[in-house]
Amino acid sequence: MLCLSCGVQYKKVDAGTCRECYEEASETKEELKREIEDLKAKVAFLRLWNPVDPKFPNTYTDLLLYAVSDSGDTSIYTLTAAVAAHRAVLICRSPVFKAMLENEMEESKTCTIKIHDVSYDVLRTFVKYLYTAEVLLDEEMACNLLVLAEKYQVKHLKAFCEKFMTSKVNRENAIVSYVFAHQHGAKQLIETALSLIVDNMGVLTQRDEYKELVEKDPRLVVEIYEAYLTRALNTAT
Amino acid sequence: MLCLSCGVQYKKVDAGTCRECYEEASETKEELKREIEDLKAKVAFLRLWNPVDPKFPNTYTDLLLYAVSDSGDTSIYTLTAAVAAHRAVLICRSPVFKAMLENEMEESKTCTIKIHDVSYDVLRTFVKYLYTAEVLLDEEMACNLLVLAEKYQVKHLKAFCEKFMTSKVNRENAIVSYVFAHQHGAKQLIETALSLIVDNMGVLTQRDEYKELVEKDPRLVVEIYEAYLTRALNTAT
Repeated sequence: MLCLSCGVQYKKVDAGTCRECYEEASETKEELKREIEDLKAKVAFLRLWNPVDPKFPNTYTDLLLYAVSDSGDTSIYTLTAAVAAHRAVLICRSPVFKAMLENEMEESKTCTIKIHDVSYDVLRTFVKYLYTAEVLLDEEMACNLLVLAEKYQVKHLKAFCEKFMTSKVNRENAIVSYVFAHQHGAKQLIETALSLIVDNMGVLTQRDEYKELVEKDPRLVVEIYEAYLTRALNTAT
Repeated sequence: MLCLSCGVQYKKVDAGTCRECYEEASETKEELKREIEDLKAKVAFLRLWNPVDPKFPNTYTDLLLYAVSDSGDTSIYTLTAAVAAHRAVLICRSPVFKAMLENEMEESKTCTIKIHDVSYDVLRTFVKYLYTAEVLLDEEMACNLLVLAEKYQVKHLKAFCEKFMTSKVNRENAIVSYVFAHQHGAKQLIETALSLIVDNMGVLTQRDEYKELVEKDPRLVVEIYEAYLTRALNTAT
């Protein structure tokens, strides 16, 4: 028979679907593609301007964000250049900013938010994401943004960074990723890293980061061994 | 053979695709569905609050929009209640608002925009769409919003209304829709309405709205006859 999709002859044993199902599936595919186009247009419409783009200098911002480098003494710190933003947008994107800005907190009174322990570059990227849902990630940026997204409860960004980091887990970074994921409640990343660790127990338990983890957080190591045991028992049965 | 999709036996003559293509198509479908989920999450993230929802009374708006009912004398008009909004959002969504608000025009100085010839309800719905890309349309609202969307160059909303109106064209409203579509440069609606008119020339040329159109805008009637002629000639060959 001739396959209606690829146009190649096939034998009875390699048969897939009837003509009706093939036609239905083609229609469904076209419908899904149209839905994707519609959603892409909606995203383009809803996307705000890039607030750190110098082409948009004058958009009536009413708030400044600063990245703060802490020294040991918490009363001494250095501010970077400011990133200007809109209260209304921040309130909409993050329940933490909402609480901060809608109540009579210092941030609301001074129209200033200080973000600790991030670089200016990460802050800019974070604010840009809040406006555009766009970011070009590398592993370091994903890690930094996930921390910020968790702190300010920007779920969409956290999920995006976690997905990216999950795609980058390998034998080399599995333990570090696993620890990081635990610290920030990134379930998908925990699972992927744990599975990779269990696959490579012999090698990874020789590593320095394993030994450090035993010292610093032995409960996490117990979890690893429990997962290892579960798999061993399942394989046995 | 047994169809892998619907599970029903079929004959050679009803064969669709080979197994490989069926499996590939299933994977593609799953991928498209995942993409749709991702895009939906992005839309939900980018969507701003509903500015006319009384639950969000305090979002630092810096602009008021009024619906204006004109009397014959342009210096006398009635304002409805105001819809509060953000300059930054309006600038982002409409090049017309951008020009208005970024230059030293009256609207910018007074922080007030008057929208003529719309009801308060249409104005609220329009502003809500600028924030949320959400609207529940009926034919009248689609018509009103399309006019506003064209005036303020909100392409996404115009396309959305046009699509809705196109889906509602029938023999009863074909001529009215055709005229409306011409007035507002709605190409898709023009085509659909024209095609329906040409299909029903005998009936529709008896109608009052046809006779009115001959009086008011005979060029549009010529276009209808040209389309009719083209189809007749094509059918003949």
